[in-house]
Amino acid sequence: MDLQELRNNIDDIDSEILKLFLRRMELCREVAEYKKKHDMPVYQGGREKQVIDRIKALTGDKSLEAGTAALFTTIMDISKILQNRQLLADKEDNEFTLPAFENSSRIGCQGTSGANSETASRLIFGDKQPVFYKTFEDVFAAVQSGEIDYGVLPVHNSTAGSVNSTYDLMAKYSVYTVKEVCVDINHCLAAKTDIPIEEISAVYSHPQAIAQCCDFLTAHRLKTSEYGNTATAAAMVAESDPAEKKAAICSIDCAKKLGLRIIAHDITDCEMNRTRFVCIARDLQVSPEADAISVMLKIPHTEGSLYRLLTKFYVNGMNLLRIESRPVKDGSFDVMFYLDFSGRIDDANVKAVMNDLAKNLEYFRFLGTFKS
Amino acid sequence: MDLQELRNNIDDIDSEILKLFLRRMELCREVAEYKKKHDMPVYQGGREKQVIDRIKALTGDKSLEAGTAALFTTIMDISKILQNRQLLADKEDNEFTLPAFENSSRIGCQGTSGANSETASRLIFGDKQPVFYKTFEDVFAAVQSGEIDYGVLPVHNSTAGSVNSTYDLMAKYSVYTVKEVCVDINHCLAAKTDIPIEEISAVYSHPQAIAQCCDFLTAHRLKTSEYGNTATAAAMVAESDPAEKKAAICSIDCAKKLGLRIIAHDITDCEMNRTRFVCIARDLQVSPEADAISVMLKIPHTEGSLYRLLTKFYVNGMNLLRIESRPVKDGSFDVMFYLDFSGRIDDANVKAVMNDLAKNLEYFRFLGTFKS
Repeated sequence: MDLQELRNNIDDIDSEILKLFLRRMELCREVAEYKKKHDMPVYQGGREKQVIDRIKALTGDKSLEAGTAALFTTIMDISKILQNRQLLADKEDNEFTLPAFENSSRIGCQGTSGANSETASRLIFGDKQPVFYKTFEDVFAAVQSGEIDYGVLPVHNSTAGSVNSTYDLMAKYSVYTVKEVCVDINHCLAAKTDIPIEEISAVYSHPQAIAQCCDFLTAHRLKTSEYGNTATAAAMVAESDPAEKKAAICSIDCAKKLGLRIIAHDITDCEMNRTRFVCIARDLQVSPEADAISVMLKIPHTEGSLYRLLTKFYVNGMNLLRIESRPVKDGSFDVMFYLDFSGRIDDANVKAVMNDLAKNLEYFRFLGTFKS
Repeated sequence: MDLQELRNNIDDIDSEILKLFLRRMELCREVAEYKKKHDMPVYQGGREKQVIDRIKALTGDKSLEAGTAALFTTIMDISKILQNRQLLADKEDNEFTLPAFENSSRIGCQGTSGANSETASRLIFGDKQPVFYKTFEDVFAAVQSGEIDYGVLPVHNSTAGSVNSTYDLMAKYSVYTVKEVCVDINHCLAAKTDIPIEEISAVYSHPQAIAQCCDFLTAHRLKTSEYGNTATAAAMVAESDPAEKKAAICSIDCAKKLGLRIIAHDITDCEMNRTRFVCIARDLQVSPEADAISVMLKIPHTEGSLYRLLTKFYVNGMNLLRIESRPVKDGSFDVMFYLDFSGRIDDANVKAVMNDLAKNLEYFRFLGTFKS
């Protein structure tokens, strides 16, 4: 056969497989209806194993068994997803509360004036002044208690990676993400007076800022010391005795505001350095332009469980934007997954996936939406 | 139809689909042979799109198109994986260098005597004394230069999560992981004299240890300061002026060794707290009992790319054990994935997957093996 003939034959086979798959879905729907009518449980674990065992036995070539088993697991998964979608789609049409960014003046950030969180807050709330809290957790607690309407916190930096404490606090507090903004970060090394770099006794800053300038700090063999926030570290240096020769990593704006001397410009490991900030609120609020969704979930201890979870998103055209894992902190190495994917929460398919996950996973939480 | 009839019909359809799938694979193999004979490129991007467009048009029900497209993408992926496997399996039978843990005495850790890395080193090398380096990077550099044979570094803690700097250094240095061990971590709060917790001026420790005791530190509103290592922080406190009221988070062994007073026992956020350590070497060495594999890779910016990557592992029965992502640090939010999965590197299927990834991904590196 020549290439075109081979391809025509493959096309014919694909048409046959498609027809059989659609017929299979119909029969599965009939099974579901039968079970409903006879008050039987929808999912019966044994049946799936039966199908797979049968396929393995029919495959013939032993070396292909794992592959055909995977194929039929996926066929069953996709079939279930599409059925589930047809059952749940258009079932309810929730109305979502719109965020009131313009009207709110009760906003909270961690740190002090001059911190990057303030820049992020300004991108959302304009000139309105945020309240500053000492820790990330204080901001979460203030949002949950209703003391403030919105909190603005960093979640991800393009050089240092995820801000773990923000992820862990999302698990601890029941708040929603209602917006994300991105801030360009440009760190400098600042001190009270113009001192040579090699004379600096210690560099103070937030651990993320220290991590972002790792190459510079290592090259100059500088001692570092953790501080809650870049701006508070800079403020401490501004009030320190010049003889102590302390320095801080902070933004140029912040250094200027405090009258510090800039010892080195642009000290981050790569030229472009950006941080995504998330805006949290006590209740779910969905912006009309929100086109991405955040969830947190635990996947079961079964073979291919992450693969099979991603099948659900893939089949519905929801593209994975970010995957992050954090320990569940029970002494095991089990993790909580944080996933962001494209999709609108008012889309029937997206809703169906969310309902499915909420129903079938040991732990699932919808964290909110944002404009990607 | 009753339930049994419905299921029999589904079984019949499955037998048909299986037959067609196996026939499809044969035809694909013929296509591959034809292309080889006629010196044509193996993968032709346009063809895949053609197949999917055709399936979408044939599906009929518009709401099912995304689902059937996903099904056929997966069918083509699985078919390619199984073909690829048959071509590459048993092609070569590498012999791997065995690790020489017993004979080596040139071992390196970060920190000082009493650090948890030393405990991990002892689990692998017995009583042999490691050389201590100031930073994680110093250990990597010493392994790469041949100054030491093995380095032992933390990679993952059950409470604080991944040790980002170890992951980032794996990307920077060309070394292999040759073993993993797990150490139970039990932190205490130690000071020079018996002082009440509320009088402590600051708590010094490694950022991971601080993160692991986050709840305790927050509850007592203790100020923290970052130190390179729990043992060096404890040594500094042991040499400090008691009037300064400094404290350190370290192991009980370490506190006792330095003659410190234990202010609080078991201060970690959960009772069980364990850290996995990785042993690195300059060359690939494979223990006979190694049953897991570490790789790092970048996935393409295409729809469902992580899902399609995981298909390759799933189809070959390789179970994902850990997935971690770190920024590539080019100013974008792109990430490098670090994956651990079950499988033996001398297994033909595993080798085929690795060859496939190495050939088709923009960036792929095999990091080594370990006993899971």
